[in-house]
Amino acid sequence: MIRVLIWNEYQHEKTDERVRAVYPDGIHKALADFLGDEEIVVSTATLDDPNCGITAERLAETDVLIWWGHMAHQKVPDEVAFLVRDAVLSGMGAVFLHSAHHSKPFRYLMGTSCNLTWRETGDSELLWVIEPSHPIVAGIDRVIKLEAEETYGEPFVIPTPDKLLFIGRFSGGEVLRAGCLYERGNGKIFYFQPGHETFPTYYNKDVQTVIRNAVRFVAPTYRQMTGCPHVRFITDEEPYVL
Amino acid sequence: MIRVLIWNEYQHEKTDERVRAVYPDGIHKALADFLGDEEIVVSTATLDDPNCGITAERLAETDVLIWWGHMAHQKVPDEVAFLVRDAVLSGMGAVFLHSAHHSKPFRYLMGTSCNLTWRETGDSELLWVIEPSHPIVAGIDRVIKLEAEETYGEPFVIPTPDKLLFIGRFSGGEVLRAGCLYERGNGKIFYFQPGHETFPTYYNKDVQTVIRNAVRFVAPTYRQMTGCPHVRFITDEEPYVL
Amino acid sequence: MIRVLIWNEYQHEKTDERVRAVYPDGIHKALADFLGDEEIVVSTATLDDPNCGITAERLAETDVLIWWGHMAHQKVPDEVAFLVRDAVLSGMGAVFLHSAHHSKPFRYLMGTSCNLTWRETGDSELLWVIEPSHPIVAGIDRVIKLEAEETYGEPFVIPTPDKLLFIGRFSGGEVLRAGCLYERGNGKIFYFQPGHETFPTYYNKDVQTVIRNAVRFVAPTYRQMTGCPHVRFITDEEPYVL
Amino acid sequence: MIRVLIWNEYQHEKTDERVRAVYPDGIHKALADFLGDEEIVVSTATLDDPNCGITAERLAETDVLIWWGHMAHQKVPDEVAFLVRDAVLSGMGAVFLHSAHHSKPFRYLMGTSCNLTWRETGDSELLWVIEPSHPIVAGIDRVIKLEAEETYGEPFVIPTPDKLLFIGRFSGGEVLRAGCLYERGNGKIFYFQPGHETFPTYYNKDVQTVIRNAVRFVAPTYRQMTGCPHVRFITDEEPYVL
Repeated sequence: MIRVLIWNEYQHEKTDERVRAVYPDGIHKALADFLGDEEIVVSTATLDDPNCGITAERLAETDVLIWWGHMAHQKVPDEVAFLVRDAVLSGMGAVFLHSAHHSKPFRYLMGTSCNLTWRETGDSELLWVIEPSHPIVAGIDRVIKLEAEETYGEPFVIPTPDKLLFIGRFSGGEVLRAGCLYERGNGKIFYFQPGHETFPTYYNKDVQTVIRNAVRFVAPTYRQMTGCPHVRFITDEEPYVL
Repeated sequence: MIRVLIWNEYQHEKTDERVRAVYPDGIHKALADFLGDEEIVVSTATLDDPNCGITAERLAETDVLIWWGHMAHQKVPDEVAFLVRDAVLSGMGAVFLHSAHHSKPFRYLMGTSCNLTWRETGDSELLWVIEPSHPIVAGIDRVIKLEAEETYGEPFVIPTPDKLLFIGRFSGGEVLRAGCLYERGNGKIFYFQPGHETFPTYYNKDVQTVIRNAVRFVAPTYRQMTGCPHVRFITDEEPYVL
Repeated sequence: MIRVLIWNEYQHEKTDERVRAVYPDGIHKALADFLGDEEIVVSTATLDDPNCGITAERLAETDVLIWWGHMAHQKVPDEVAFLVRDAVLSGMGAVFLHSAHHSKPFRYLMGTSCNLTWRETGDSELLWVIEPSHPIVAGIDRVIKLEAEETYGEPFVIPTPDKLLFIGRFSGGEVLRAGCLYERGNGKIFYFQPGHETFPTYYNKDVQTVIRNAVRFVAPTYRQMTGCPHVRFITDEEPYVL
Repeated sequence: MIRVLIWNEYQHEKTDERVRAVYPDGIHKALADFLGDEEIVVSTATLDDPNCGITAERLAETDVLIWWGHMAHQKVPDEVAFLVRDAVLSGMGAVFLHSAHHSKPFRYLMGTSCNLTWRETGDSELLWVIEPSHPIVAGIDRVIKLEAEETYGEPFVIPTPDKLLFIGRFSGGEVLRAGCLYERGNGKIFYFQPGHETFPTYYNKDVQTVIRNAVRFVAPTYRQMTGCPHVRFITDEEPYVL
């Protein structure tokens, strides 16, 4: 069983008619609808929940956190972002979607600005598979086609990904490293670019497949914070850690 | 000309007789003494300076920042650490020495805990060269020998270095990725493990050579913060960035 | 089920009394003895078999190839080495043990000389875990202790590993990146340093655990050679590949 | 001074009228024309020269080798390809252009098939800068525009580049990791995709700038083959290497 916590900012859907038309119950609900199955158990949290719905205890019982945010990144307290960062370092998997490239938890895990170039003109997008054997692209042919997405372009200020799984290519001209895999501490992190709030991206079967694969891939097999132990000589009697 | 700012916490030297005996004018002074030459212009800052001696303006005029800290990492305000992080992302080089592995600027740039295993028993250390052709190891034979150092051991919770230049091996048994090179945003970062405050490490000629090489290597050839521009179609008339 | 093919040069054991005393039926037999279980089905091949016991057909039915060689690397024909390389690129997992760092298949997959520094004086070795959460180190505490091994030292001329899992540290002074993970094409490759023919290394429970974990980790979930297809426009009618 | 050897297959230009119209004296001549300056000294070699114009002695006196080949990769003997590989491992820089992705020296250095997807329909290409601060992109704005190029697409079967500098995006839909930087042994390798023989790509000023920058960047500061030395104990008297 994989316990997934879907965190959605859930602001656009309450304030913007166009967004509500696409995701009437919130993006988190659309993600939950296709993710939940016999293996994956889903719960959700949003910005307006107390403490953003995030506590150390809740994260300790979460295998994979999915994060979507956009207009209110700064309303997430640093304390909450650091809780997420530390849970990832201890082994929790994390999937950051679309504009979560600029969320505090993602930026704090990357250490960079995560800036990129953007344009909201509804370009179509081709998402090309770079590593056909990777479990996250299982079930995807060579390319995912999206009729409309927000355009994101390079330079995308991220550390060189441990593994680049997708490059996105927009009809207006731009390209983006659109599927980026990282290992940080004992946790795995996947960034996946599609999912602008005004387009029905999360109803696309291929996008759903990638997110479902990603959840399985980043789910931990080990969960423990690696500490900073004071130790004795390895050759001395036990215990090694003082 | 390379403008180097040496930041030293400068606490141990004022409070611990043993440390003062080794570095009577502070570790920053020992570093400045061997670094300053016709090419490298050095200035210094310490924790007790106003705002830690760090302002955005000063960093804008700094090519390479060297950081040494240990007992007072938490006294460096987050604001100062973020200034350093952003200066690195805009191109400033950074060299983090010894216990600066746990400094806020280094941790915020890495995104990880930077925890490691440690023991203060004065083990001797061999620092083995991993990449003999790298400019940072120029002038070093196969190995640097240090009579006494604080023992640091793995697991060292850092992102996989872009390039691993040294592995340290301690007489008591431990090993550490001791020379780690990163590129983040437009800046280069070098972590170098030797330099415990109670040992005369920074008087060692090989250690001095590595730090001098590192300053030259991480000095920027480009200095600009990569932003998050809103753009029009690449095929439209100029300007591209709105 | 994972189909493992253990390839052993099997020369030392037939010509050197000291080696026969340790591995009377060959290193491949010792490896097969602890690997075979309900999940892992083992077969073996040696240098003296026709065509080294390697054919394209046999590799196509192999999930993971383990390779041990030392004194007769040059007797393996290039054609055999290229068969192995191509099977890995198509997804077959590979585990290269000890002196197989200099085998043709490993060198051809790495693209480098794979040279390293060495000394046969029976140093003891500590193998330190670098990434405690990686499945290949599951069941290993912080360190594996070996009473005697051939000493291997840096510089080890390999591409920077995708993931460094172990650093070996020898009592005589040297260190080595001793557990190195790579992805090449659709296949995974693990190099693991312990296993000199005159020492009973492959009877060590921790070494056995690592090799067993590695077999499981590099076993493929996808098996296909990525080709060089001539394609039509993505927007044209099917098929895309001409 | 940087001594550059430009190797061009030089077959298309002699047999195909369309290619001769673009490069009447061969692609090597077009490259030599813009590269030669006060700092860079150029010589050339072609497939029809004795031993392909490649000897160990000549490579020893070459700082950077540029390679262009396409229709006759298999006519380059393995011995020549291995000479090139070993020269790179000893520190010689190498720049592989366009269809040299499939040349023996490049494939042997990468260890992979270097397969990719292709189509010769004269798509236009946008080459996007990924790392704006890298010396190889100095003088390039955000993007290089080419009116016509051969289309190359992913999956491109290469090891994950140490640094990805360009992504190419073709009007027909495909994308490619088009500027890929590697370090192998003591040498630096740059692959750069533009340059189909029927298009005037090497007269484009931006393409020329990138190639000139690349020559300077991969030129060695250290030149020596790292060997496989038998050593005594580091603590014994000198010499360490036996």
